[in-house]
Amino acid sequence: MKKYKRNQRIGALMKIFSEKPNYVFSYNYFSELFNAAKSTISEDVAIVKQLVCELEYGKVETISGASGGAVFIPIMGIKEKKDIVSELCLLFSQKNRILPGGFIYMTDIFNNPNIVTNIAKIISSEFSNIKIDYVITVETKGIPVSVMTAQKLNVPVAVIRRNNKVTEGSTVSINYVSGSSNNIQTMSLSRRSLKENSKVLIVDDFMKGGGTCKGMSDMMREFNAEVVGTAVVIETKTPEKKLVDSYMSLLVLNQISEREGIIEIEPNYKLLK
Amino acid sequence: MKKYKRNQRIGALMKIFSEKPNYVFSYNYFSELFNAAKSTISEDVAIVKQLVCELEYGKVETISGASGGAVFIPIMGIKEKKDIVSELCLLFSQKNRILPGGFIYMTDIFNNPNIVTNIAKIISSEFSNIKIDYVITVETKGIPVSVMTAQKLNVPVAVIRRNNKVTEGSTVSINYVSGSSNNIQTMSLSRRSLKENSKVLIVDDFMKGGGTCKGMSDMMREFNAEVVGTAVVIETKTPEKKLVDSYMSLLVLNQISEREGIIEIEPNYKLLK
Repeated sequence: MKKYKRNQRIGALMKIFSEKPNYVFSYNYFSELFNAAKSTISEDVAIVKQLVCELEYGKVETISGASGGAVFIPIMGIKEKKDIVSELCLLFSQKNRILPGGFIYMTDIFNNPNIVTNIAKIISSEFSNIKIDYVITVETKGIPVSVMTAQKLNVPVAVIRRNNKVTEGSTVSINYVSGSSNNIQTMSLSRRSLKENSKVLIVDDFMKGGGTCKGMSDMMREFNAEVVGTAVVIETKTPEKKLVDSYMSLLVLNQISEREGIIEIEPNYKLLK
Repeated sequence: MKKYKRNQRIGALMKIFSEKPNYVFSYNYFSELFNAAKSTISEDVAIVKQLVCELEYGKVETISGASGGAVFIPIMGIKEKKDIVSELCLLFSQKNRILPGGFIYMTDIFNNPNIVTNIAKIISSEFSNIKIDYVITVETKGIPVSVMTAQKLNVPVAVIRRNNKVTEGSTVSINYVSGSSNNIQTMSLSRRSLKENSKVLIVDDFMKGGGTCKGMSDMMREFNAEVVGTAVVIETKTPEKKLVDSYMSLLVLNQISEREGIIEIEPNYKLLK
């Protein structure tokens, strides 16, 4: 069976850890994969641990004992966070994004995997020290960010639907009031999509009044789930008082002036402290 | 400025390549990042190239010249592909997935980032030697697979909506006939979501008659886009003649017997040759 050199093992370890963050790999797994003694693997992991720290990729935690292993927890450094958020500000405030009625075209951004990965890295990084069982979102635009965030946190996603679908099995439906438009809307979630007593992180693309996030939070009560965090990519500056109390956002939309063609977006400075 | 050891640079390179497959990184970028001479980087990349090949992760291609760089193209080995597809068969055929009316509950699978990443690796791997500008899908269940596939291919996604949304700007709508139910349905895509004359890969979760994929393909004509491939996760064995001619699937659903509680799913053996 093939043997690998140290720098090959280090390279492979970094690939494996990066592709499955927050997942505990056993030393046995690496030992078989590389055809190397556990003591060798242990030294490799120590090198990777230091590297991940030096390059500010996050941290590698090791679990000792017979069922020992190692897990990579990505945590974003403040500089990278600032760079990404500034870039997002520029992108979202491009004036050709203004749509009739003062809306902003954002779909291309939320469907760009590289951008969405960066957003997901920030969100997952903020919640890296909290136990989370599921990421919850509501269709459609927030799905890519939610899936990428869930991938970083190594948990499944539950997608709340606007309509009831036969392929979802039995569902729980609730009515909620959209905070901004005062319309009553419905959302449904498959009973099977969530285990009871789970801890969930709500993720969405945009928050104005907070009605949708409030609706998701109400839905979680029907599943006896605890909302341990809420993250949105963009929140509007007004109304200042949202229907949910505690949430994080990456960006704040101050105003859109359709006539002058100006979209004013700034970083959520609280996030960058 | 900090210097890094070779095995540290190899480790970092593997992380960077894995996180952004099919993206060309310049030697200058690495040179600045690691504070190392281009000749050193070039040696590092040669080591990574060999490693990626030995471990059957795919290939690293180098582009020479002043604007030289390197790109990681993941290509899945046949053994890994077989393992993933077998695992998917077991998962999809769990008998408690049968819903009233002979439907199968699959939502949890399509919302599990680890599973979806594996599916996306297979799809992107099959299309690794074809030029693709966009991945196209229709909401909702196929979005996670599409986003992950697009991430591997380093291209954006365009999500076709079932309804017209004000936040999509001007849209193109078409009617299509669902191949299985003979219902006429509508799909809309934002004009801004696709550049003219693009090459697109259609990705969806499930194909019975092929009406939805045919609809997406018709929609692409409205954008002067060329469909260079169609990939679905599961196709049904019947009807054997689908409304689209050329497509790939990972799994074939032979039959569901609601009364006996049996779901018969097998790998698409053509894929595993």
